[in-house]
Amino acid sequence: MSLKTISAVNSMSYEDFISTFGNVIDHCSLCAAAVWRDRPFSDVNSLHKSFCQFVDQLSTGGKEGILRLLPDLAGRLAMSDGLSKESTKEHQSAGLNTLTEQEKQNMHHLNQQYKQKFGFPFVICARENKKEAILTGLENRLKNFGETEAVTGVEEVKKICRLRLLDIVGSSSKL
Amino acid sequence: MSLKTISAVNSMSYEDFISTFGNVIDHCSLCAAAVWRDRPFSDVNSLHKSFCQFVDQLSTGGKEGILRLLPDLAGRLAMSDGLSKESTKEHQSAGLNTLTEQEKQNMHHLNQQYKQKFGFPFVICARENKKEAILTGLENRLKNFGETEAVTGVEEVKKICRLRLLDIVGSSSKL
Repeated sequence: MSLKTISAVNSMSYEDFISTFGNVIDHCSLCAAAVWRDRPFSDVNSLHKSFCQFVDQLSTGGKEGILRLLPDLAGRLAMSDGLSKESTKEHQSAGLNTLTEQEKQNMHHLNQQYKQKFGFPFVICARENKKEAILTGLENRLKNFGETEAVTGVEEVKKICRLRLLDIVGSSSKL
Repeated sequence: MSLKTISAVNSMSYEDFISTFGNVIDHCSLCAAAVWRDRPFSDVNSLHKSFCQFVDQLSTGGKEGILRLLPDLAGRLAMSDGLSKESTKEHQSAGLNTLTEQEKQNMHHLNQQYKQKFGFPFVICARENKKEAILTGLENRLKNFGETEAVTGVEEVKKICRLRLLDIVGSSSKL
């Protein structure tokens, strides 16, 4: 798929905008529906900034809600093929499709502990990490307080969002 | 379907909670994902209050986003059977399935004008209005300012949410 120019993005109908950007934050099309108000965007960075501002303005429940709507990393959804096409690609790039049986069990166990402790799943930008770093990160972040983890999780969501936007809109396209 | 007690709601897993309440605000499961944090609820009113608080705390873009995610009343989605089962029932109770060809065209035209003026669709609690009141309301609200309409629309969303919650949770069930 060829990259869109920012002008093309700015001239999209709402319906096209939602179908293009509705899943840059997984299962949470409210983000794109809110961001649509901020057109025109000067470039992909200003588009990303608008997503970040919406997320930052959410209540703690809303931020945690965004995390809760995300699939467990290599977890339940991945095993039953319930991941979005974006997530599947990202998980593959981290090598999460090459986990050994032992690594799979370990990750599953740690994910469960994490979710039980914090009430939302562990989120990490898979495209910026390899499976070994993800497993280590999971072990370390399990030791944190809930407030810290909600903030860290949301920062990872923003990184994932940025990379997904860059898959759609050319980074050199400016108004 | 028998009504759930509030105790049953409070003991739901997150997955059950989302599948039960994920659409009390149409196409916007982030609301239920956020509200889940506020358990336990003392009764259906406290559950509704939690949804209202989440919506009220959203930025203007977020509030408009909720409206934008809703289907046009008797509009595009209704014509192509794209309404959620909740919306279909509500539209029927207002008599929107008995619109004459003339009324249909009139409503379609007014809806288009409304959406063009405000950037989000006209929203009204169909179960609290009949088709004649809806058509008159649409004509009158078209004259308002955008800021007023975003607030009015969101208040209607809260009414729809309340009636949907009452379809699921018994109003006499208290902790």
